[in-house]
Amino acid sequence: MLILGIDPGTAITGYGLVEAEGNRLIPVEYGALRTKAGDDTAARLSDLHRHLCALLKAARPDVVAVEQLFFNTNVTTALAVGQARGVILLAAAQAGIEVVEYTPLQVKQTVTGNGRARKEQVGFMVKALLGLNTVPRPDDVSDALAIAICHAHMGPFLRRTVQAAKAR
Amino acid sequence: MLILGIDPGTAITGYGLVEAEGNRLIPVEYGALRTKAGDDTAARLSDLHRHLCALLKAARPDVVAVEQLFFNTNVTTALAVGQARGVILLAAAQAGIEVVEYTPLQVKQTVTGNGRARKEQVGFMVKALLGLNTVPRPDDVSDALAIAICHAHMGPFLRRTVQAAKAR
Repeated sequence: MLILGIDPGTAITGYGLVEAEGNRLIPVEYGALRTKAGDDTAARLSDLHRHLCALLKAARPDVVAVEQLFFNTNVTTALAVGQARGVILLAAAQAGIEVVEYTPLQVKQTVTGNGRARKEQVGFMVKALLGLNTVPRPDDVSDALAIAICHAHMGPFLRRTVQAAKAR
Repeated sequence: MLILGIDPGTAITGYGLVEAEGNRLIPVEYGALRTKAGDDTAARLSDLHRHLCALLKAARPDVVAVEQLFFNTNVTTALAVGQARGVILLAAAQAGIEVVEYTPLQVKQTVTGNGRARKEQVGFMVKALLGLNTVPRPDDVSDALAIAICHAHMGPFLRRTVQAAKAR
């Protein structure tokens, strides 16, 4: 299963493409989509949408995994992240790719075993679990890979739960 | 000048198309774009995007006017409105149409003379200024028309200011 993890932002959107084969996790591609600081928001969202559509078309992931917003943020951040997130959900829907969401707690718990882990710990475990030489930078890229890893672990469990529920 | 005012939301997005000729304001078309409650967010944003692109293509407004978020809201609302707003800004950028933003204070001040006016007062003045028989419902539609009216009043002033600044 090919999973695209995304950490949304108007300035920088981190992405990480992870192939999950049973218990094996293979980092396929990861990086940051950046938009021009001087451009207005509409132009930056349009750039983000174009980059994302190209990425989805080239990579054809089975699923897009996005983090649910942390609720201890402020309204300005929530609006900005929401705008980028809207464009990401749209691009996935237009490409006909399923979107799954995880809370920051679920991502940290799955990747580090500690729901309150610090950023550095998440980066360290992403590096270890994917067999990378260095922690992917900026943080948005590590976070995107962490979300993909979270789905690789949680996805089969969730599907089993759904099937078990349906079987009853 | 043809102005499209938009009040963004995932469930209901109000829109109001107003033609401003000097001091005259002509209501051209207004209504609400609705998405299915049962659908997931990505599908709803995709529906919203499709409706909006069709509206922009059919109406070809000179400008899209959107309200800036009220900062006395909560994070969940900000995220949801942000997602719809991102899709709206994207659709406008893709259609090559300029986007302008006004604060709720500016909209209320321009339409009613009172920056702290209540919703009913805004609806009443929208009806009066556009010569309508009834207050457009739901509130999202009245609000969208109010934003368009705000730009009709503020736009020429802003342009004069910019030109005066450039002339110096």
